[in-house]
Amino acid sequence: MLNRVRSAVAHLVSSGGAPPPRPKSPDLPNSTSAPPAAPPQAPRSPPARAGSGSAAPARTVEARASFCRPTFLQLSPGGLRRADDHAGRAVQSPPDTGRRLPWSTGYAEVINSGKSRHNEDQACCEVVYVEGRRSVSGAPREPSRGQGLCFYYWGLFDGHAGGRAAEMASRLLHRHIREQLKDLVEILQDPSPPPLCLPSTPGAPGSSDSSHLVGPQSCWSSQKEVTHESLVVGAIENAFQFMDEQMARERRGHQVEGGCCALVVVYLLGKVAIIVRNGEIIPMSREFTPETERQRLQMLGFLKPELLGGEFTHLEFPRRVQPKELGQRMLYRDQNMTGWAYKKIELEDLRFPLVCGEGKKARMMATIGVTRGLGDHNLRVCSSTLPIKPFLSSFPEVRVYDLTQYEHCPDDVLVLGTDGLWDVTSDCEVAATVDRVLSACEPNDPSRYTALAQALVLGARGTPRDRGWRLPNNKLGSGDDISVFVIPLGGPGSYS
Amino acid sequence: MLNRVRSAVAHLVSSGGAPPPRPKSPDLPNSTSAPPAAPPQAPRSPPARAGSGSAAPARTVEARASFCRPTFLQLSPGGLRRADDHAGRAVQSPPDTGRRLPWSTGYAEVINSGKSRHNEDQACCEVVYVEGRRSVSGAPREPSRGQGLCFYYWGLFDGHAGGRAAEMASRLLHRHIREQLKDLVEILQDPSPPPLCLPSTPGAPGSSDSSHLVGPQSCWSSQKEVTHESLVVGAIENAFQFMDEQMARERRGHQVEGGCCALVVVYLLGKVAIIVRNGEIIPMSREFTPETERQRLQMLGFLKPELLGGEFTHLEFPRRVQPKELGQRMLYRDQNMTGWAYKKIELEDLRFPLVCGEGKKARMMATIGVTRGLGDHNLRVCSSTLPIKPFLSSFPEVRVYDLTQYEHCPDDVLVLGTDGLWDVTSDCEVAATVDRVLSACEPNDPSRYTALAQALVLGARGTPRDRGWRLPNNKLGSGDDISVFVIPLGGPGSYS
Repeated sequence: MLNRVRSAVAHLVSSGGAPPPRPKSPDLPNSTSAPPAAPPQAPRSPPARAGSGSAAPARTVEARASFCRPTFLQLSPGGLRRADDHAGRAVQSPPDTGRRLPWSTGYAEVINSGKSRHNEDQACCEVVYVEGRRSVSGAPREPSRGQGLCFYYWGLFDGHAGGRAAEMASRLLHRHIREQLKDLVEILQDPSPPPLCLPSTPGAPGSSDSSHLVGPQSCWSSQKEVTHESLVVGAIENAFQFMDEQMARERRGHQVEGGCCALVVVYLLGKVAIIVRNGEIIPMSREFTPETERQRLQMLGFLKPELLGGEFTHLEFPRRVQPKELGQRMLYRDQNMTGWAYKKIELEDLRFPLVCGEGKKARMMATIGVTRGLGDHNLRVCSSTLPIKPFLSSFPEVRVYDLTQYEHCPDDVLVLGTDGLWDVTSDCEVAATVDRVLSACEPNDPSRYTALAQALVLGARGTPRDRGWRLPNNKLGSGDDISVFVIPLGGPGSYS
Repeated sequence: MLNRVRSAVAHLVSSGGAPPPRPKSPDLPNSTSAPPAAPPQAPRSPPARAGSGSAAPARTVEARASFCRPTFLQLSPGGLRRADDHAGRAVQSPPDTGRRLPWSTGYAEVINSGKSRHNEDQACCEVVYVEGRRSVSGAPREPSRGQGLCFYYWGLFDGHAGGRAAEMASRLLHRHIREQLKDLVEILQDPSPPPLCLPSTPGAPGSSDSSHLVGPQSCWSSQKEVTHESLVVGAIENAFQFMDEQMARERRGHQVEGGCCALVVVYLLGKVAIIVRNGEIIPMSREFTPETERQRLQMLGFLKPELLGGEFTHLEFPRRVQPKELGQRMLYRDQNMTGWAYKKIELEDLRFPLVCGEGKKARMMATIGVTRGLGDHNLRVCSSTLPIKPFLSSFPEVRVYDLTQYEHCPDDVLVLGTDGLWDVTSDCEVAATVDRVLSACEPNDPSRYTALAQALVLGARGTPRDRGWRLPNNKLGSGDDISVFVIPLGGPGSYS
């Protein structure tokens, strides 16, 4: 009856430099034609977004364009208004009466206390079917469902500077993953090692004739073994890049001004690419901030000084350098150092530091506190034309957890939460809530995970008291949007 | 009676890109005027190197220039010949009769079985006194010994393509560290936090007036706390850079053609910057190879494609791409990916891969198997003019171990070894030898650490049998140079 807690998954991660050249995806999901996927038979509410092919009247489309919540919440217009109420901050969960989320996943959310007009978090939970694009031999595949793959998908998206990037990512990121997996359908179902090379055209020879390779150096004559797992990791990594590139292309039409952080779980063939763990609290994600990514940012600024536009220095100083200190010696760190040393202050050291501040106040280019995310293609340094990308990278960090390697009990869960949860709740507090709520419910009650998600959201929000939302210890609760998924690790079918 | 084993210290680490601009060191140690420091009163043999100011006759200088061993071995000309004998491979240790190494450190070495003319490993063990350059207030310091600092220093240097870089580093790296510490003598002895800013000229005001700083952003108004420890780390980091820059400047005069890896331990004020650990086997270093540093190398090639000279691609493929495969799709990884994906092969993918091969055969630019080291300033890609630097970086990785936080018994040791040891000996085997040898000696016998170093070297070398040096399990022993320090963690004075 031990509880396993907290987690994250494909936390957004680093590219560095201009976006790398990347093979074209032949069939990118189109945000203007792809309606958001919904659980089978669940009513879609609010109606699909402008241009998504729904027949909703223009007025509804208008309203929705400025505020939408996950379709699986099945919110009525009245429910949508309540979910948008900063004063009441009512916790929202999928209705008991509708079809449950896959795996009996629990979900709860609450809007912020006023920091932004609408809830800028978004969520997605889907079962996604992947049809193979063609067979390894190059012959076009029969469109027979039996030969495809299914994956389970959960995503949380924490938007900033508007909710559009989070909304777009919640509707499309899993489709990009599906797109990347299409080439792999047959390969992943074949127990033999993946082919290193595929023919370009149907019927062309594959890579099986690679064994005659003899290079002039011994290091060239070898060939690496590539695992199936690493192909899925590569597919997820590339899907994030394609998602970000699509946002860049379509940002004008969709008014995507801001960006979002993403936390995604993919369950495929017994493995969850990125997840929780066993026994005790096992964090599965880490934060990407100007502090944790200092050396990546500094290295990029050092190797590509033109990205700093003469406005910033890639060196770090423990505080802002003053003009009157020219010629004195101040502590600094460059892109390689973990320690500090003194250097004589020169004119260029008076520039703004690329990375400054500590903790919640840490900023990159004096502008933004996160260093990985989707979107933000229009983001510029305050009162400047200098772009924040590519310092802000769309590359995810992917971790793999093999669900089949552990026996999971009904109380083993993966908790995904946005900043609203983690800013005010420690891992240990989450673990205690998991224990308290789940032990009070029957193990076979599928609504227990929703009850747990609600308890976690309520615990982070607090109650209105003394002119604020306060926790039982009288500290302030989170004023941010709070969204939580609780995924039981028992696996598909076990509890649903 | 638990044994603590294995370690490393300032393993050589990464710079990336052209060497960063670095504050000038006002008083760089000069390799042409600084004779190698020797334990007090120990006879210096072989005599000091050419140009080092010794009055040795030219003939001796000649001989020594092509072959020298650590001065603390106190080798006679006959001993030097025996140490240079590839057939006998006699194990060398400091004589029992002379002054012991600091901390009763044990040392043993053996030459290779023929892979190079001379032993390309070098070692240094010193107590180094650091005199402060001036006081924090800017007033020139009285040259009174009592106000300086001492540090203990152990270094192993594993040369390649000749022994000159290793020899130069063994004679000078600790002097560079001393140079970097000179500014910190007073600061490190003052329990208050280090000043963030120092005056440029004696008597000028310090940084105590920094509190009025108010930036336009909250992130700028803060100032970081910098620890004493991080100043020492920064000093060591910069010392490696200065050492490498000195090699670049003086390589012609000293015929420094090759390079070396370095493993260094510094003990200062109760802390050992970079060390071993407690209870069981705690590795304190890691290897820097084209495999472990793949993403750093790829990122550098991606951001600075001119460094690849049109000859290499920064992408990794699981094997060499063949011209006939143009247009097919092959697995690849870029600088951001940990997984693999397929891409269509284009003309530029036919270039040599920046990183190729696996394990011991992994190579960077088809040339070298290590990615951090001192020297190698003349190293070019085979049959090309393309330099291997800055892919080969001189930046160290520094780890700190606080000796004062643990109670150490006489069997707690830090084992430093060159590749010759670790290539054929696992951490567990080293731990077993530590236990076997030390438990057979009296705890207060100071020669037990030398006995242990000898046992480790012998265990890695093996005995001549079946036309080779073989281990008891009949596998081949190491044919490389093997050098081992055994440092008792009991601290200075406890066992010496």
